[in-house]
Amino acid sequence: MQNKQPVIAPSILAADYSRLGAQIEECNKADIQWIHCDIMDGHFVPNISYGASVVRAAAKSTDAFIDVHLMIENPDAFIGTFAEAGAGQITVHQEACIHLHRTIQSIRRHGLAAGVAVNPATSLHTVEPIINDVDLVLLMSVNPGFGGQSFIRSTYQRLQRLCTMREEHKADFFIEVDGGVNLDNIEKISRSGADVFVAGSAVFKAPDIPARINELLREAKAGKEMVI
Amino acid sequence: MQNKQPVIAPSILAADYSRLGAQIEECNKADIQWIHCDIMDGHFVPNISYGASVVRAAAKSTDAFIDVHLMIENPDAFIGTFAEAGAGQITVHQEACIHLHRTIQSIRRHGLAAGVAVNPATSLHTVEPIINDVDLVLLMSVNPGFGGQSFIRSTYQRLQRLCTMREEHKADFFIEVDGGVNLDNIEKISRSGADVFVAGSAVFKAPDIPARINELLREAKAGKEMVI
Amino acid sequence: MQNKQPVIAPSILAADYSRLGAQIEECNKADIQWIHCDIMDGHFVPNISYGASVVRAAAKSTDAFIDVHLMIENPDAFIGTFAEAGAGQITVHQEACIHLHRTIQSIRRHGLAAGVAVNPATSLHTVEPIINDVDLVLLMSVNPGFGGQSFIRSTYQRLQRLCTMREEHKADFFIEVDGGVNLDNIEKISRSGADVFVAGSAVFKAPDIPARINELLREAKAGKEMVI
Amino acid sequence: MQNKQPVIAPSILAADYSRLGAQIEECNKADIQWIHCDIMDGHFVPNISYGASVVRAAAKSTDAFIDVHLMIENPDAFIGTFAEAGAGQITVHQEACIHLHRTIQSIRRHGLAAGVAVNPATSLHTVEPIINDVDLVLLMSVNPGFGGQSFIRSTYQRLQRLCTMREEHKADFFIEVDGGVNLDNIEKISRSGADVFVAGSAVFKAPDIPARINELLREAKAGKEMVI
Amino acid sequence: MQNKQPVIAPSILAADYSRLGAQIEECNKADIQWIHCDIMDGHFVPNISYGASVVRAAAKSTDAFIDVHLMIENPDAFIGTFAEAGAGQITVHQEACIHLHRTIQSIRRHGLAAGVAVNPATSLHTVEPIINDVDLVLLMSVNPGFGGQSFIRSTYQRLQRLCTMREEHKADFFIEVDGGVNLDNIEKISRSGADVFVAGSAVFKAPDIPARINELLREAKAGKEMVI
Amino acid sequence: MQNKQPVIAPSILAADYSRLGAQIEECNKADIQWIHCDIMDGHFVPNISYGASVVRAAAKSTDAFIDVHLMIENPDAFIGTFAEAGAGQITVHQEACIHLHRTIQSIRRHGLAAGVAVNPATSLHTVEPIINDVDLVLLMSVNPGFGGQSFIRSTYQRLQRLCTMREEHKADFFIEVDGGVNLDNIEKISRSGADVFVAGSAVFKAPDIPARINELLREAKAGKEMVI
Repeated sequence: MQNKQPVIAPSILAADYSRLGAQIEECNKADIQWIHCDIMDGHFVPNISYGASVVRAAAKSTDAFIDVHLMIENPDAFIGTFAEAGAGQITVHQEACIHLHRTIQSIRRHGLAAGVAVNPATSLHTVEPIINDVDLVLLMSVNPGFGGQSFIRSTYQRLQRLCTMREEHKADFFIEVDGGVNLDNIEKISRSGADVFVAGSAVFKAPDIPARINELLREAKAGKEMVI
Repeated sequence: MQNKQPVIAPSILAADYSRLGAQIEECNKADIQWIHCDIMDGHFVPNISYGASVVRAAAKSTDAFIDVHLMIENPDAFIGTFAEAGAGQITVHQEACIHLHRTIQSIRRHGLAAGVAVNPATSLHTVEPIINDVDLVLLMSVNPGFGGQSFIRSTYQRLQRLCTMREEHKADFFIEVDGGVNLDNIEKISRSGADVFVAGSAVFKAPDIPARINELLREAKAGKEMVI
Repeated sequence: MQNKQPVIAPSILAADYSRLGAQIEECNKADIQWIHCDIMDGHFVPNISYGASVVRAAAKSTDAFIDVHLMIENPDAFIGTFAEAGAGQITVHQEACIHLHRTIQSIRRHGLAAGVAVNPATSLHTVEPIINDVDLVLLMSVNPGFGGQSFIRSTYQRLQRLCTMREEHKADFFIEVDGGVNLDNIEKISRSGADVFVAGSAVFKAPDIPARINELLREAKAGKEMVI
Repeated sequence: MQNKQPVIAPSILAADYSRLGAQIEECNKADIQWIHCDIMDGHFVPNISYGASVVRAAAKSTDAFIDVHLMIENPDAFIGTFAEAGAGQITVHQEACIHLHRTIQSIRRHGLAAGVAVNPATSLHTVEPIINDVDLVLLMSVNPGFGGQSFIRSTYQRLQRLCTMREEHKADFFIEVDGGVNLDNIEKISRSGADVFVAGSAVFKAPDIPARINELLREAKAGKEMVI
Repeated sequence: MQNKQPVIAPSILAADYSRLGAQIEECNKADIQWIHCDIMDGHFVPNISYGASVVRAAAKSTDAFIDVHLMIENPDAFIGTFAEAGAGQITVHQEACIHLHRTIQSIRRHGLAAGVAVNPATSLHTVEPIINDVDLVLLMSVNPGFGGQSFIRSTYQRLQRLCTMREEHKADFFIEVDGGVNLDNIEKISRSGADVFVAGSAVFKAPDIPARINELLREAKAGKEMVI
Repeated sequence: MQNKQPVIAPSILAADYSRLGAQIEECNKADIQWIHCDIMDGHFVPNISYGASVVRAAAKSTDAFIDVHLMIENPDAFIGTFAEAGAGQITVHQEACIHLHRTIQSIRRHGLAAGVAVNPATSLHTVEPIINDVDLVLLMSVNPGFGGQSFIRSTYQRLQRLCTMREEHKADFFIEVDGGVNLDNIEKISRSGADVFVAGSAVFKAPDIPARINELLREAKAGKEMVI
């Protein structure tokens, strides 16, 4: 079992877009390490969220690591744009990449960390050939496209299997979970193997954002400790 | 010649997304009538701008009429979403709509005004069959996809031709121009026949936003008066 | 003005599919000359109707000319199939054919009559280059995809313009109208220039199908006579 | 080994479309439990079969469970339509669904049973993540698109592997086989693990349809008994 | 009437690819000014011809102007590649370019001449908005995709109309004809208004290539002189 | 372990296209058994290489077996064309074939050997269902699209796994490696299990082509012998 410190990655998808800077400033108060940006194009997923300009505005509002998750078709065409906008890491969907190895290489050539994401019904076998080439594997725990959905419970088992795969392949990537993460389930998600916890509504709909981030982090740490 | 009052429609594409509400508040000070929202999906145009959540945030920040311009493929799938987000009008691209008549009908059925947009190299003949069914025709004066481009000069002639078509068909739609509009050319654009002037950088990069909007409006009115 | 005898073309889209043969037999009693088959693929239009097997069943139930209207993407791939199924004529959509001249040639090489259809918002200019190469031009008078819609009134003017084009180009094609044709408007449609009248609900929802076909034909003839 | 009663599901793809109601009436005489509807759009497969109107006609002709198999791209857009047309179950292709988990959820939200189908060369690994969420897994035993093809023999082994997967995952879905099923092979197919047997030509080209259905059922039961 | 010297542009589509250099060397003997390269991707047209490597080999074999005709979807993605391969001009299809103005701009930014091509059934209206921005308009006189087809006779009239458009718009572009040009028809094609004559089989299937080029040129000049 | 004789398959992608016949003649001097043709359409991969005419020219220049590798979308539409052009074998990409079993059948029906190729990041599980139906499995050892790339080292392990799969399934296909093969690594590639070695630059950029082919073959044989 690898011993990575848990990371809470607030997703601005759930933020109030009329005062995005102020919302991120709230996160900064909790010393967040990562900000998660969910890019949706209305084609890979049935919703359009936002593009590089909003990422740029987010990046200027924080010193946190900008974790960009491309829920788009043809991500290769957009890697340069998001790199310039301030991304520190770009994660692409296995389902969107016929030439996934090239896409990962291209992200690296832009000097960024590279991740791969899989949908809830996508076999983990599909990412096995690339598992030693990525910095992060993202398990979708809802069907991508909208905020505010409920966590799909089969994700717990998928997390465990992914942990096993990581050990078997002597790989060293972060395991990220995106979708429906909240105070009630984050401890169990952590216990099942996740390292990075994307949290949208759970953070930005909270009465006190920094307090909530700290609570989530505490629960995630508690889960981690139960494993070791 | 129809006698429509000129309208300045600030496009938030050029706004600072970290404080969108405050930026729109600046526009409110100039009593703007319309706010223009440029929706890009990275497929119809090679850039992703933002979707319905940002439109919703904009709509909540102003009483102005929300003028949504869909630079996306398959706009039919998104009409309901933008209607709910606060759109008062939805404009679709002729080049994106094989069933343009149905799309216009669908926008109306959602209780909204309906517009059609054409790219710089698209013949005006293509919108002739629909000219009596729309509230607005938008002439792109740059190639859609990015802010900050220069006005394409052949647009002046296209505006005149569109005015003529409007008269010949006894139609009653607004003529909107989008792309590269600024203090130097707005008078001539107005004189050539435009009614609605989308202005991005010209508004949001100005040192004093309300003052700039008023200047633009004054110039647009001056152009209109020269025609009559 | 050309002097073509009007043709009523019952569209089986509105028939009872559980007894298609019997429904067509009713049409045969009125000595129908054409049967119209509306093929929809769920891609060019948002509905799937039926394919070649149903056309084959229809063709075996009548001696009428089988008039196949392909509301599908990539029609070139299906011409052979519908020819074998008994089509006498294949009409393709201008909006679906980047190489329309080749598609028309291909229909002819299969020994069939060839038509071109245009949607309600498609400029008639788009078919001008092919006007001397087709046997039929079909004006959609509803947005294609579903039966039972209302006739779009701007079609009257489009019919007149198409008649003028036909004369100017010394062309010799049938003008067909599809969508919302009924007893109330067929006389005016005929007067405006149509030669072939597709009728779905108007025929198959009638209490007495052969009587209804004859009524429609009488009205269509009345319209024709007013022109001459 | 689960002990499901075998079901013969006549596919109307092989029926005479000019008298579909009468053909289904023949099936009713054999007390069929399911009717299978093969929907093809000419895009996912190179053939267009029929859409919701024909399903509706079929549903009105029988009390059997309407088993709809969507061999189409973008099935999400059509779930509501087929639900209204009388479907009791909708099966989608794994190869057509990037968001398979969402599609299955959507079918259930319409109150229907949900199935997933795989082509002959698609790995069974691809459906493993969804195996506990479906009511049926359909193994194609021919390449989808046309009736009257020969059964692909490697299907026997795939059936056995799928049975094993079902046990290992403590799942509870029907195993359906579609393509080339006939009197000669149905016993072996049953023995290999199938529960539901789609039969097109084998039923509708038979001289006595109800007798043939009963023969098929008897053979299928014989196969089942050899397993237990 | 503009007075451009006629140009014969041998298309290497009809050359023997096993000795392309030697075949072009034959053309060089006739002091050819242009070499025409027909790039086909199997998507815009149903044939794959060749890409930039073959263009590069051709360019190295001659001092003639390399006239690249992209019969491909998404030409924007390939402009840089063909510029580097030695193109002097790139012509794109109107039917392949939703943002035709941008594509033309992009070709120019690479320092190349820019052309637009239209298929036999595409209205000349579609290129009118861009007519003052291009160096060449190419009229297809066969349906693109294959060599060796017969000249479509309606092209004569289209050439005349295009000449008229050029004069009315005070534009200054070459008119190029591609498809079925040979010794029998080149004089009439020239008389109808063409300036550049693509010739594939007519050149490379000739017993004496340089002699044939000179014959074609003589005939083209004869046609030009009849106009003036 | 199967005992297939190693085959060097020079890829003409790296040849000088201005004298292709002469380049292949050099290969003939080394008694090559296979010539490899890399067909790229600019859609499945971001490069257009060449089509059937160049294959035909190659086939006429040699008695070697023509090994056609289709890096294209929709390969089914092109099988007949490449069969006529002289292909002895056609290999398609798993990632391009939703109906892979049908595609393989179609290649066979044209009387050709049939192969399947997988990209570097594609799981070998995806070809398992078809492993007993193909004559060759091609492992891409670079991301397809361009010549001159470096061999991806994880291919060694994939070769071993594929060998194991072949034995477990009692299958009998060639294992081909394409991308970055050269004198330095061919022995190790052979030792890892490859039977057929595509070599582009390694052959055609060599000072003495026949000598290089023989060196490559000697190294490949050396690798094979170490296994046994």
